[in-house]
Amino acid sequence: MSETENEDQGRIIFGLRPVEELCRAHPKDVSVIYVAEGLRTPDVARVIAVAKDRGIAVQWRPRALVADLAGKGAHQGIVAVAGAYRYVPVPTMLEAAAAQGQAPLLVLLDGLTDPQNLGAIVRSAEVFGAHGVAIPDHKAAPITAGAIKASAGATERVRIARVHNFLGSIDKLRESGVKVWGTGADEAGVSVFDADLTVPTAFVVGSEGRGMREAVSRRCDGTLRIPMAGQIASLNASAAAAIVLYEAMRQRLRGAT
Amino acid sequence: MSETENEDQGRIIFGLRPVEELCRAHPKDVSVIYVAEGLRTPDVARVIAVAKDRGIAVQWRPRALVADLAGKGAHQGIVAVAGAYRYVPVPTMLEAAAAQGQAPLLVLLDGLTDPQNLGAIVRSAEVFGAHGVAIPDHKAAPITAGAIKASAGATERVRIARVHNFLGSIDKLRESGVKVWGTGADEAGVSVFDADLTVPTAFVVGSEGRGMREAVSRRCDGTLRIPMAGQIASLNASAAAAIVLYEAMRQRLRGAT
Repeated sequence: MSETENEDQGRIIFGLRPVEELCRAHPKDVSVIYVAEGLRTPDVARVIAVAKDRGIAVQWRPRALVADLAGKGAHQGIVAVAGAYRYVPVPTMLEAAAAQGQAPLLVLLDGLTDPQNLGAIVRSAEVFGAHGVAIPDHKAAPITAGAIKASAGATERVRIARVHNFLGSIDKLRESGVKVWGTGADEAGVSVFDADLTVPTAFVVGSEGRGMREAVSRRCDGTLRIPMAGQIASLNASAAAAIVLYEAMRQRLRGAT
Repeated sequence: MSETENEDQGRIIFGLRPVEELCRAHPKDVSVIYVAEGLRTPDVARVIAVAKDRGIAVQWRPRALVADLAGKGAHQGIVAVAGAYRYVPVPTMLEAAAAQGQAPLLVLLDGLTDPQNLGAIVRSAEVFGAHGVAIPDHKAAPITAGAIKASAGATERVRIARVHNFLGSIDKLRESGVKVWGTGADEAGVSVFDADLTVPTAFVVGSEGRGMREAVSRRCDGTLRIPMAGQIASLNASAAAAIVLYEAMRQRLRGAT
């Protein structure tokens, strides 16, 4: 699915937090919100108030319709119908960092296929103040309703790029002065304790099963290693991403190691 | 389900890594391994070799049977039939830490219901060298086949306790000199940067939706806060657990902040 095709499509966002975040971040994208008939909890009332405050239409509909629109997702009785997901180009992320007077902090996902993991990583990226997340435009999970839900709505706050040429994007970032680190279980990698993450930094996170592709690994400035004490010695992709983002924030707030 | 009942039951472990880890860690628990007929990949051959090396019976069976045994799980064509999951008591965890000359590092899960999250947290606990994970014996996910799979087999390496009296366990740990920290989005909490995690430490991680129960929070020595830069400001339970465990390991290797 190319970005152009994607822009021709609408999307369904479901769940309390994702719908609320969408209304707060991009109210003009929302065409309508459907709430399951009879659902009158304080949480739902709050989201409805947020929506109405922004001039968004809210309609009561049979619960079965809400469930159908959400597919198999955990909809919590609420869905929003919105325009296509708004991807941004990578240079916009660098401009945003510059505008905030911060060294860029980016995450590049190399072929992550699980929307749950994608959503969890976008959520961690939002929490730790990353300026954007880049995903390939093929062989990778796009921003689906499931990913939006798993991100607790963070997809509406974080800049997300879909890049056609993943390797070329790494080259361009390095030319722009961004240090690009692979992440993985590479024994020969640089310990995350010893890497200076206060400079412009991008982390490449590999897919759940196979990790980073060899061609991607070669393109990076180096590979980061998270020191581990156990015998199994591998974190899942979203835990690894959370930790390197945390460590970058820690160093930026406390000074490098 | 009480621990006694559980000990009367067998269990099914599926997927390449969980089965391999089970064979390595507890070969005597395994009664038989079934592999889908016709499946001859290098990964499967490796697991079979590990099993046979330990005297475990391996049998070829129709793929449909393997799939049935794994329920809806991603079985990768391999299941193991084993005895009941071996929970251990909390004091055993403290003894294990003492035997290794280490300050205890524990995780207490307060009512986590998602087996995926449970598995991911056990995996992070293994990676960062925690001495055990305690889960309540009711209103919480036990160690199911799904949790074992999500942990990549770490459930076979990490000591896991099922406790009947969760609050009482916190009290006993504190009496034993373990500092028990709640984790959550408590603005008034102690920054994880400022807490000394090199001393005997236990982290309480709350459930996905509601976080820690109030009664649990009051029982702890204090609440840890992970500093965050974003506007949504909440991590999912497994990312939060990964980060506090990482920070404990970082401090223990590098010295406290």
